[in-house]
Amino acid sequence: MQSDNPTAAILVIGDEILSGRTREGNAHHLAQVLNATGFDLREIRVVSDDQDQIVAAVRALDGSLGGAWDLLFTSGGIGPTHDDITADAVALAHGTTVEVNDEARALLQDRCDRMGTELTPNRLRMARVPVGARLIQNAVSAAPGFSIGNTHVMAGVPEVFRGMVDWLIPQLAAGRPVQSQSVEVRRGESDVAEDLKAIAGEYPDLSLGSYPFNDADGWGTNLVVRGLDAERVSEAMAAIKQRMAL
Amino acid sequence: MQSDNPTAAILVIGDEILSGRTREGNAHHLAQVLNATGFDLREIRVVSDDQDQIVAAVRALDGSLGGAWDLLFTSGGIGPTHDDITADAVALAHGTTVEVNDEARALLQDRCDRMGTELTPNRLRMARVPVGARLIQNAVSAAPGFSIGNTHVMAGVPEVFRGMVDWLIPQLAAGRPVQSQSVEVRRGESDVAEDLKAIAGEYPDLSLGSYPFNDADGWGTNLVVRGLDAERVSEAMAAIKQRMAL
Repeated sequence: MQSDNPTAAILVIGDEILSGRTREGNAHHLAQVLNATGFDLREIRVVSDDQDQIVAAVRALDGSLGGAWDLLFTSGGIGPTHDDITADAVALAHGTTVEVNDEARALLQDRCDRMGTELTPNRLRMARVPVGARLIQNAVSAAPGFSIGNTHVMAGVPEVFRGMVDWLIPQLAAGRPVQSQSVEVRRGESDVAEDLKAIAGEYPDLSLGSYPFNDADGWGTNLVVRGLDAERVSEAMAAIKQRMAL
Repeated sequence: MQSDNPTAAILVIGDEILSGRTREGNAHHLAQVLNATGFDLREIRVVSDDQDQIVAAVRALDGSLGGAWDLLFTSGGIGPTHDDITADAVALAHGTTVEVNDEARALLQDRCDRMGTELTPNRLRMARVPVGARLIQNAVSAAPGFSIGNTHVMAGVPEVFRGMVDWLIPQLAAGRPVQSQSVEVRRGESDVAEDLKAIAGEYPDLSLGSYPFNDADGWGTNLVVRGLDAERVSEAMAAIKQRMAL
């Protein structure tokens, strides 16, 4: 698909994904938001709560650090426990250190006051962000995410992650939303390959994908056309339907 | 967690994950199998159907090519259509080329004979594997996966992927299965952080994780102990329960 939309990567940080305990869902949610908003998601990585791995991935993926893509979004590892090392690792990747951020501390203090609890040293850990970072609002549980360079650091708890995404994405300079149309055919992928290739050749500006599945009625294939121009997407879908007599 | 289990990475190849169309499930399934079998999954990457991205990821992740981890498992991109380029890209990463494999062709021919269909050029694409590769059996739809170096290439369709995993994993030299125990506490993560850190210090051979959640009853945290020695895991869990009066 031809696109000059800003490119993006997602870095998921957490042993619970790699151990198989938790099925990752934050990257899937953000993938949908990014495509619908006008960002071109190009890579997802999942690494463990390991400083070297996080630092290497941030440097490899954040364009402001010479990484491969324009923007980097992370999920996980910013809680209050000993294995929450994302803030420190992201700071290190950006050549800086962490500090207790006054604005973040005030947000946590305010929440503790309302909840009638104390701002313990563990809770205060969640106000530690890299020097120079901008905060990302957490409407669910106060402890903020943060942005530094082109790295946007968000929480792993799904409700909190989604709230941060809702707040953050509208503030970023987006391109054009991706348009897509799909049609299901009751044929195996091999039987549509030829037609699809021919149409893909006629529409180099679009992305044509085929996704085989196997259900109670046997094999079928979903054909998906994606692109930035809704009219071109409709044209290509019409061409598919005509060529395959759908 | 201290472990000398073989390390592993998973590379998922496919635009449908990055576009948000499909929620990835193969890596989650394989993560569970690897941990239960005695492999230490250290990284997951998702890239698009792009030759440069696939080649770079294979080289970065397969230890036999100087990559970071011992074993690499891939999912997706070995079907019959124009955008199925995984076999070619993996061959390139391993410094070789693809050829129509005689054994794979015979498997496909046999299936076509049974189905009363023809082995068309598109179907024959699925017999193209890197020179020197060993086949991975596909009990669902015949078209095989393959192994070359320490890269194990499997299909993206979930039923087929699972069948290939079932066939492949028992043939690989595994370490010791990971043992795990978990307990749910009705406290926020901040309120367990101190106790958990103390116990983590006493059990450096184990991994202690805390996973906060938010449900109808408010915030809670799942505490998870993981390690290779079942007795040590039980000891640490007992210590957690005693210390937190659970």
